[in-house]
Amino acid sequence: METKILLGEKEIPTHWYNIVADMPNPPPPPLGPDGSPIGPDALTAIFPHALIEQEVSGDRWIAIPEEIREIYQLWRPSPLYRAHRLERDLGTPAKIYYKNESVSPAGSHKPNTAVAQAWYNKQEGITRLSTETGAGQWGSSLAMAGNMFGMEVRVYMVKVSYHQKPFRRSMMQTWGAEVFASPTNQTEAGRRVLKEHPNSSGSLGIAISEAVEEAASRKDTNYSLGSVLNHVLLHQTIIGLEAKKQFEKAGDYPDVILASCGGGSNFGGVAFPFFADKAAGKSVRLVAVEPTSCPTLTRGHYAHDFGDTAGLTPLMLQYTLGHDFVPPGIHAGGLRYHGDSVLVSQLCKEGLVEAVAVPQLGTFEAGAMFARAEGIIPAPETNHAIRTAIDEALQCKQTGEPKTIFFNLSGHGHFDMAAYDQYFDGELEDCDYPREDIEAALEHLPKVAVG
Amino acid sequence: METKILLGEKEIPTHWYNIVADMPNPPPPPLGPDGSPIGPDALTAIFPHALIEQEVSGDRWIAIPEEIREIYQLWRPSPLYRAHRLERDLGTPAKIYYKNESVSPAGSHKPNTAVAQAWYNKQEGITRLSTETGAGQWGSSLAMAGNMFGMEVRVYMVKVSYHQKPFRRSMMQTWGAEVFASPTNQTEAGRRVLKEHPNSSGSLGIAISEAVEEAASRKDTNYSLGSVLNHVLLHQTIIGLEAKKQFEKAGDYPDVILASCGGGSNFGGVAFPFFADKAAGKSVRLVAVEPTSCPTLTRGHYAHDFGDTAGLTPLMLQYTLGHDFVPPGIHAGGLRYHGDSVLVSQLCKEGLVEAVAVPQLGTFEAGAMFARAEGIIPAPETNHAIRTAIDEALQCKQTGEPKTIFFNLSGHGHFDMAAYDQYFDGELEDCDYPREDIEAALEHLPKVAVG
Repeated sequence: METKILLGEKEIPTHWYNIVADMPNPPPPPLGPDGSPIGPDALTAIFPHALIEQEVSGDRWIAIPEEIREIYQLWRPSPLYRAHRLERDLGTPAKIYYKNESVSPAGSHKPNTAVAQAWYNKQEGITRLSTETGAGQWGSSLAMAGNMFGMEVRVYMVKVSYHQKPFRRSMMQTWGAEVFASPTNQTEAGRRVLKEHPNSSGSLGIAISEAVEEAASRKDTNYSLGSVLNHVLLHQTIIGLEAKKQFEKAGDYPDVILASCGGGSNFGGVAFPFFADKAAGKSVRLVAVEPTSCPTLTRGHYAHDFGDTAGLTPLMLQYTLGHDFVPPGIHAGGLRYHGDSVLVSQLCKEGLVEAVAVPQLGTFEAGAMFARAEGIIPAPETNHAIRTAIDEALQCKQTGEPKTIFFNLSGHGHFDMAAYDQYFDGELEDCDYPREDIEAALEHLPKVAVG
Repeated sequence: METKILLGEKEIPTHWYNIVADMPNPPPPPLGPDGSPIGPDALTAIFPHALIEQEVSGDRWIAIPEEIREIYQLWRPSPLYRAHRLERDLGTPAKIYYKNESVSPAGSHKPNTAVAQAWYNKQEGITRLSTETGAGQWGSSLAMAGNMFGMEVRVYMVKVSYHQKPFRRSMMQTWGAEVFASPTNQTEAGRRVLKEHPNSSGSLGIAISEAVEEAASRKDTNYSLGSVLNHVLLHQTIIGLEAKKQFEKAGDYPDVILASCGGGSNFGGVAFPFFADKAAGKSVRLVAVEPTSCPTLTRGHYAHDFGDTAGLTPLMLQYTLGHDFVPPGIHAGGLRYHGDSVLVSQLCKEGLVEAVAVPQLGTFEAGAMFARAEGIIPAPETNHAIRTAIDEALQCKQTGEPKTIFFNLSGHGHFDMAAYDQYFDGELEDCDYPREDIEAALEHLPKVAVG
């Protein structure tokens, strides 16, 4: 009885899949503060041309450069697992599969785009990359990727995380990156915050401002983002493309695909390649899973909003809880984002993908159940997908349906064991969405006269 | 250009390799305090019959039960990597390969024997396992393995590690094990220590005593050991057996095999299957790598000594620094052992395997260089093998020889990032062997009139 469906290195996809080619309606462009569309040229100060082209491309297939595929070989293709032991523990007639993205050196799917972004920047003469990171999954992935191409990487890490999660910081330093506790004295944005709040513990919004300022002010430096943007989701489609080949080998096909969703790159990465089949008439449910504490797709408003807290980015049409919304401190840091990818938001709005929100305690219960069955200890973000996979499987137990359930194991939890401790010690809470009136969030949206 | 040489699950070896069948001289039996050999029956209070049989077996091949192979499938066969990027960074004509054992859910090679030991105990009606752990690699592996067969696992974790390395403890608890800070009040051995030293921070010796006492005093409970014993090394030969198939696929064969060596199970696991070829005349060097702070094979005495600090175990003929020797607190906790496996010791004594000792700073330098080239951040123990692999490769650069170098990447360093921090902060020391006169250790050896 096979556990892992493996592919050889020669089977690593040669092209990424661009969902825009198959969407019934084109995604809307980003807007400036005055409500008029922003052209690609506005982004050249912080992004390389190649990535801007990918951001606006309508081509279905975009070739993966050979040097990127060579780095991918260090951990790709990632295995597709059949969760025989979890199925047995649940007593379900369902078949459960998961793609194991935790096998990358950084421990998550994030390097899939980090490597690509570093390479494209390098091709255009960029020698330094700046970025922000919260808990550190993204920062560590970019640190590893930049280092592999001999580039300097500067990571602005939210100060409270810098001190609370020192081991992700250690990882970044092991890969040669410089890591700063944000706010710093090195940028105008940082100095402004420190002047007003000398003891500021930082925020993702501040860290983004610092990283963007550094990139915008230096010719040798560009900015790199770990989710949300079209080109980031594009790079992550390597996950779903491999999975399709693996399901073909297994002689199976998923009825439902589940992935945790913060900015959208994990969900898009695994689900979008299956969307092509769905658009062609195939029956497959694509479900984005988010925390009830930050229910962007399930309870947010579909409106133009900023991508960052400080309001520096262009306005994007998306599901949002308001760009100034600070989600409760759940352990799934990667899902604490007020907005969502334009592509995922639009597909959700059009009813082509589903969204569901789950509370924190149930996600850790699911993660522990998974770890005891399958061995791997998942990241708190991943536990959201596992929760819904288990719920689907238990429903199959009721109905007797032998559904094929597929979720993405986006990362391991080796740097999140303190969260598991708190769960087992009964110290975790569900942290539901704190705004009593969801309509109140509307007042926090920017007023845009959409052009 | 291929990076990973993969095997399918059907290629997982069906038998473990028992080196005893190919050794020029039979290994000596363990002795009682009076110097007379101890028979297998003396061990039945704490070990199952099947493992005692393996401990004394002379059969070359021992079948791996199907249920153990099924669990192995969760992470095995592990990939064999060609370190193209490290070779390029070193500018060496040598070819460097490594077997990646960090892919197991516990993050090291330890589950290879943990799963086997749990299964054999279960077959004989045992429902509880007790063991000790220092830094936690072994304890977490047994926790995972026991849980997979529905067994209770009780881990006595050295108190200082229990508090300093809380995340390995969290892992064990996630897999359902009970973890105690040793010394405890639950055993006679623990209570005796606490009576005299209420603030004792514990030691591996004390923890072993507690775990053995618990196993010896309850019919439903057996004791499980993570290295040193013949049957433990036997189970680990799955590593070398897979590697041989992978080298065959690659059309290559190692000139030298390097593995870190504490109790001997990592080294034996990867090197022993190649010993069969060596015994048949093939030229291959087998090199055990240990820390200069605990230079058992390179500077120890070949004598009968206890396996534990407290002197509870039978006497075994081995290289030893004296069973009361407490090695300096280097970060490679798995290599801080005063003695060594009887099998590895004898092969070393007979000149059939080599041993080399390396100082701590150079191992971290090597680990960081490896991480920056290949991505994976290795465990401090593993860095010992990497140091010597790099040294061999640099020597090839001098001589121009295109040697094939192979080492075992025994584990990842995700739970050892504090050690990397100290290294980068310049706070680490080499910690050389502290006994000025190596002869002084002789006085600490038990006086045995060998039978």
